[in-house]
Amino acid sequence: MRMAPDAWTLDDGPHSAVVMTSRARVARNLAGFPFVNRATESQRAEIVGLTRQAITSPGTTPRFEWCDLARMTDRERRLLVERHLISAAHADCDIERAVALSEDESLSIMVNEEDHLRIQCLGSGLCLGALWKRVSQLDDLLSTRIAFAFNRRWGYLTACPTNVGTGVRFSVMLHLPALRLTDEIERVRRAAQDLHLAVRGYYGEGSESAGDFYQVSNQVTLGRCEEELLEELEQKIVPRIIEYELEAREMIERRSPVLLDDRVHRALGLLRVARLLGTEEAMKLLSRVRLGIHVGRIRDVPAEVVNRLFLEIQPAHLHARTGGSAEPDALREQRARVVRLALGAS
Amino acid sequence: MRMAPDAWTLDDGPHSAVVMTSRARVARNLAGFPFVNRATESQRAEIVGLTRQAITSPGTTPRFEWCDLARMTDRERRLLVERHLISAAHADCDIERAVALSEDESLSIMVNEEDHLRIQCLGSGLCLGALWKRVSQLDDLLSTRIAFAFNRRWGYLTACPTNVGTGVRFSVMLHLPALRLTDEIERVRRAAQDLHLAVRGYYGEGSESAGDFYQVSNQVTLGRCEEELLEELEQKIVPRIIEYELEAREMIERRSPVLLDDRVHRALGLLRVARLLGTEEAMKLLSRVRLGIHVGRIRDVPAEVVNRLFLEIQPAHLHARTGGSAEPDALREQRARVVRLALGAS
Repeated sequence: MRMAPDAWTLDDGPHSAVVMTSRARVARNLAGFPFVNRATESQRAEIVGLTRQAITSPGTTPRFEWCDLARMTDRERRLLVERHLISAAHADCDIERAVALSEDESLSIMVNEEDHLRIQCLGSGLCLGALWKRVSQLDDLLSTRIAFAFNRRWGYLTACPTNVGTGVRFSVMLHLPALRLTDEIERVRRAAQDLHLAVRGYYGEGSESAGDFYQVSNQVTLGRCEEELLEELEQKIVPRIIEYELEAREMIERRSPVLLDDRVHRALGLLRVARLLGTEEAMKLLSRVRLGIHVGRIRDVPAEVVNRLFLEIQPAHLHARTGGSAEPDALREQRARVVRLALGAS
Repeated sequence: MRMAPDAWTLDDGPHSAVVMTSRARVARNLAGFPFVNRATESQRAEIVGLTRQAITSPGTTPRFEWCDLARMTDRERRLLVERHLISAAHADCDIERAVALSEDESLSIMVNEEDHLRIQCLGSGLCLGALWKRVSQLDDLLSTRIAFAFNRRWGYLTACPTNVGTGVRFSVMLHLPALRLTDEIERVRRAAQDLHLAVRGYYGEGSESAGDFYQVSNQVTLGRCEEELLEELEQKIVPRIIEYELEAREMIERRSPVLLDDRVHRALGLLRVARLLGTEEAMKLLSRVRLGIHVGRIRDVPAEVVNRLFLEIQPAHLHARTGGSAEPDALREQRARVVRLALGAS
């Protein structure tokens, strides 16, 4: 497994100054089987077997690597969570389950998470339309090999009613440091909720915002067609939030240029010298450095380096890279070392 | 006036890793005049005139510059306070008063502070004995030119009973960052108080500790001869506190070397990149850098540079140096610039 997938690091997608990544996913269930939480262990094993066959049989493009989660170590599963390839719930539960990954990790299929299949595609910047195409193609291909539970009136059947219908969820991971600094983030959050969007933290449902990242996604799928949802998010709502964030950045640059310089250079300065770094502090400082880069205040650090660090400072990534002790103190020391090295510091 | 007197910057006195400066002073009053707070304005003017004549007449070594405080601007007086040459009370009151300064600022004589004369001598490190000699010589010389109020039973008469007798006060400015980090500073403070010593902040009476500096001085002079007080402080008590501080530094180095490195390098890193710096934060960070230098963790910054910065970051010094606006925001920006420049940063 590579240390950092392209979607999270390249910083080359549309509007990547604000939109870190986009994600499209569909929820699918196999016809003739109970939902995951109702299935017996042998039914779950059967589902894993059938989907594995469907996904890995010849003719699937791209090729998928099959990861049997029940046979991986906790640390290996944690690595996948930190890369947003599986959910924390999927990592931690104790049933037969798997994830299939394309080589560049842009496509992944969780098996036996909340639904039998969750097909997702990740990309850099705001690119929901392109991702949706790739997910649809894969969905179409798999539907020729497995029968999905579908009802003419309700559409695709899913374990949770919020996914019934198209089973589609679109989401974007937004980097909103300026709205956070100007204390406008709550206003944006409320506005998004009024539009029936969910605003979540860095690791999705139930997680806190870290590094000023907010995941925005549609909450309802029933009664809406994919194109409608897609257009609304990609053409209307997300561009509006991007505009807010960019306006907030401009306002800070105009009204408090020295304060902005102070914040971003302090962040970079600390990252370059710290000998001990916790995850939360590192995320916060990296967020400010990323802001500094995108407003042109920091010129000697490429955005890709910072983006990659957001992943590399996470505990499982850190441990996978450096080996050694996984004691919190040792990790904090290793984290500081990895960051210093990446940022070309003393 | 030079930007920083030797005593505060050279860092070459005995035990200067812990003892920033020593100070010896005597309080004297002119016979035949009421104490300052009881004197009329014309009597005060007469006192200023008489002492000026006595101090500046030929034969005085070293030569003294006469500063008429009532005719100086508030900012000029503030500069003297920041250099510990006059007290805040002496700067702020509204009477005829003055200070006489030797060229290197090691000797100063406040006129019409609490007493008619306060003759003080400052030096780097622990050097009370040497300072006391210089103060005594000057005291002897002046007593041949002015009659001091003296009572055979009580000794030298002073405005405050705590100074009656020898009128002598010895004090040391201690830098105790390790005792502060290990939370032992209160224990030291209590022990000092039990020995009838006063423990004060950076600017003396009534001030807070800043930059982990603590001023320790004798509180009582009546019934004690100078040599007794001197020996007790210089040979017994201060060496004990120095030992405590050095032990605390060693303990931190032994038990938490990475934490120590983290603290001192973060402090230096922040000072080298900050665009806005308040006095209090700057003092705190400089204190950690000074610790880092004296425990050998920071090798590319000379102690003198840091010592000089403790003075140069104070508001009046900053303003005297950079001119421009004295608005708090402008000063914070200037302070950060002066610090970056001095520490050879970007």
